[in-house]
Amino acid sequence: MDISPLAPKNFPDMPPIDGVKLATKSCGIKYENRADLLIAELAENTVVAGVFTKSKTASANIIWGKQVLYHGKARVLVVNAGNANTFNGKCGEDSVDRIVKSIAEDWNCPKEEIYPCATGVIGEPLPDNLITDALSSLKNNLTDNIWQDAAKAITTTDTYTKGSTRTAKIGDVEVKINGIAKGSGMIAPDMATMLAYIFTDAVMDKDVLQEIFSNAIDRSFNSITVDSDTSTSDTALVFATGKAQNDLINKASAPKLDDFKEKLYEVVLDLAHQIVKDGEGATKFVKIDVTGAEDDKAAKIIALSIANSPLVKTAMAGEDANWGRIVMAVGKAGEKADRDKITVSMGGIIIAKDGQLNPDYVEANVTAHMQGQNVEIATDVGIAGGKATVWTCDLTHGYISINADYRS
Amino acid sequence: MDISPLAPKNFPDMPPIDGVKLATKSCGIKYENRADLLIAELAENTVVAGVFTKSKTASANIIWGKQVLYHGKARVLVVNAGNANTFNGKCGEDSVDRIVKSIAEDWNCPKEEIYPCATGVIGEPLPDNLITDALSSLKNNLTDNIWQDAAKAITTTDTYTKGSTRTAKIGDVEVKINGIAKGSGMIAPDMATMLAYIFTDAVMDKDVLQEIFSNAIDRSFNSITVDSDTSTSDTALVFATGKAQNDLINKASAPKLDDFKEKLYEVVLDLAHQIVKDGEGATKFVKIDVTGAEDDKAAKIIALSIANSPLVKTAMAGEDANWGRIVMAVGKAGEKADRDKITVSMGGIIIAKDGQLNPDYVEANVTAHMQGQNVEIATDVGIAGGKATVWTCDLTHGYISINADYRS
Repeated sequence: MDISPLAPKNFPDMPPIDGVKLATKSCGIKYENRADLLIAELAENTVVAGVFTKSKTASANIIWGKQVLYHGKARVLVVNAGNANTFNGKCGEDSVDRIVKSIAEDWNCPKEEIYPCATGVIGEPLPDNLITDALSSLKNNLTDNIWQDAAKAITTTDTYTKGSTRTAKIGDVEVKINGIAKGSGMIAPDMATMLAYIFTDAVMDKDVLQEIFSNAIDRSFNSITVDSDTSTSDTALVFATGKAQNDLINKASAPKLDDFKEKLYEVVLDLAHQIVKDGEGATKFVKIDVTGAEDDKAAKIIALSIANSPLVKTAMAGEDANWGRIVMAVGKAGEKADRDKITVSMGGIIIAKDGQLNPDYVEANVTAHMQGQNVEIATDVGIAGGKATVWTCDLTHGYISINADYRS
Repeated sequence: MDISPLAPKNFPDMPPIDGVKLATKSCGIKYENRADLLIAELAENTVVAGVFTKSKTASANIIWGKQVLYHGKARVLVVNAGNANTFNGKCGEDSVDRIVKSIAEDWNCPKEEIYPCATGVIGEPLPDNLITDALSSLKNNLTDNIWQDAAKAITTTDTYTKGSTRTAKIGDVEVKINGIAKGSGMIAPDMATMLAYIFTDAVMDKDVLQEIFSNAIDRSFNSITVDSDTSTSDTALVFATGKAQNDLINKASAPKLDDFKEKLYEVVLDLAHQIVKDGEGATKFVKIDVTGAEDDKAAKIIALSIANSPLVKTAMAGEDANWGRIVMAVGKAGEKADRDKITVSMGGIIIAKDGQLNPDYVEANVTAHMQGQNVEIATDVGIAGGKATVWTCDLTHGYISINADYRS
C-alpha cells in the first residue's frame, strides 16, 4: 500500500514518559513480518480515563473496558492488530478473560487495571494463546523509547504510523503528553476503527481527567469522518502516571489546568487529523465549518451531513466547485436552515449568499483552491449562533479499490 | 454513458390512459439534441395526490407543489430536465410564477391545478422563458401514446428510461395505471433526485388516493437508497383522471380497493427498483431484509444503515462475503440489537447465528451468490417483531467516475 499523499513528513520525536514502558512483538495473529502486539506497562497508581464506541455490536474487549473504567486505575495496556475479537459470541469474552487472567498473574495486579484492545477483522475467533504466549517475552523487553514501533504495532490498513507530542505546564511544573493512534477506514464519530492512546506523566484526578478527555474527544475524534462507518472496537484511553511533581487539581475548570487542556486537545486533534489524512484513498483533507445553526448540536449534524455526503466527497476528489451539493447536504441534514440566508464559501471565497449565487463569484478561484491538498468549506445557515467544525477527506477510486477486496 | 448492466431489457408497452395527453420538446435548457421538457395535460377534474422531498433547501417548484396540493385537482404537469431551479432565492420563485401564469392563461385553468417540476443542476437561474416560449407548440402536439418519449424527456444522468404499467379491477371495472420516473444518483429516502408520475383513469377521492399513495411510497421510493444523498427536488405525484366507470369509494381500507392498491404499489415498486438498478455505477441490485427489530421503524433504520454503509456497498462490488461489515452496520444504526442472537444470511445461506459464525458455513456458496446481479442480505437482530425491506446497489469505481466530474 502506498503511503497517503497527505501523510506528515516525519513521525515526531517523542520523549520517554516517566512511568510508561513499552514492548512490541510479532505474534502471528494475522500479519507476517511485522509486530502486531503492543504492551504498555504503566506505573502503579496510574490514573486512566477513556471513551469507547457506541456501537450496539461492540467487541468483547470494549465490553470489558467499559466495565472496568470506573475503577480509574491502569497497570497494563495490551493491543493486538489483525483480529478485532468481535462477534464471536461467548468465545470473544473467553478470549478476553484468558488474556486478562494471564496478565494479572504475570504483573501481579488487579484485573480491573488491565485494558486489552483489539482491531482488525470482525467475526473470526481470536487466537488468544498467541497473545498469552508472548507475554513473558514482552515483559522482559520493556523499554521507554519505542513510540514509533508502538504506533506501528497497532496499525491495520494504515499507510503510516501516527504519533503526536506536546509539553504543558501545570502551575510551574512541566508535564509531557504523548499520543499514538491508528485508523484509516470505518471512521466516523462514535468513533471509528480507531484506537488512540495518550500517555502523560501528570498527576491527575480520574474524574477531572475524564472530563477533560471527553471534552477534547468531542472536538477531535468525534468530529472526524472518513466513510460514515462506525467500528465495533473504537477506543481512546488516556493514562496519567503521576510521576511529574505537579499539584493534584480537583476541578477540570481550574485555570491552572488550561494549558494542560489545550495541549492535550492539540495532541488528540493532531492524531484525529492524521487519521483523516490516512483515510482510505484520501487525496484531500477537508475542513467543514458550519455557523448560524440553531445550536452547536444542529451545526455538527449539518457539518457531518456535508462531510458524509458521497456527492460532496466525490466533488472534492474531482476538484469540482459543485457547491449545489453542499446546499443539498445542508438540506438533507433535517436541521433548521433559512434557504434565503444561506451562505456557502470555499477557501474563504464567498460562492453563494442570501440563498443565491454571489454575483461576484469567479469559479476559477475556487477551483484553484480545490486543487490544493487542503480544502475548506464553510456555510452559514442563517438561523442562530450554533457552530461546529468537522474534518473529512475526499472519496476516490482508491477507497473503492481498497475496500472491494480488503479480506482477500 | 453506457446503459446500466442492471437495466430491464425493454421499456414496457404502456397503453394510452383516457384523460392524459402528453407532449415533449427540446427547449435547450441544458441538453442538446434531446427533449428536455414534458407536458402532461390532464382532463378537467383530475384528482391529484403526492409526496415531496423533506429537504430543508427544497426548490421553488417543491414549495409551490406543497402549497397547492391540498386543492387536490390537477390540469397540467410540466417537467423540465437540466436545471433544478433550486437555491436561486427569489429568482426561483419568480420563474415558477411566470411558468404557472403562462400555463394558466394558455389552458384557461386555475393556477393551483398546475404542477411545474424541475430536475438538474442546483444554483443556476432557470431560463424559464425557454419553457414558456415552448408552451403553445407543446399544446398543439399533445398525443396519448408517447410514454417512452415522456419518460426520456425528464431524465438527467439516467442511463435508461423508466416506465411501468398495470391494470387493476375496482369492482368489475378495469382501470389502467401507468408510471414514469427518473433518477440515478442523489437517491435516498425522502426521497431522491427522483421524479415519479403515476397516471390512472380511475375515479378516486383525493384523500383516499393520498392515503393509498403515501403508503405505497413508504414501501417503495422511501425504501431505496443509492448514495444516502437526498435531493432538493424529489416529487412523486399520482393523477386520477376519473374517466373509468368505477364507483367512487370513500375509504382507503375498503376491500374493493385492494386490487388497485396492490397494482399501484407494484407500479411504484417497479419504478423504485428501476431507479436503484440505474444507481450511478451500479453493478449489483441488493435487497436487505431486517427482522427481529424493536419495531418496524427501528428495522428500517437498521436496514438503511446497512444499505448506506460504504464498506458494505464496496464489499458487494468486490463480491466479498465480508459479513463483519454487516454486523458493523447493524451496530452503528443505534437501534437495539442482541449481539448474542444476531443472525446474518446472504442468498438464504446462514452465515452467522446466535452472535457467531455458523459452524456449517461455506464461504464459497455465498461468494457464488454474490457473483450474480441480485444479492440478498438478511439479518435478524433478536429483539422483537419489527421488520423492513430496503433496496440499494453496490458502490463502484463507476460511481466515483460519474460524480467526480458531473458538472464539467
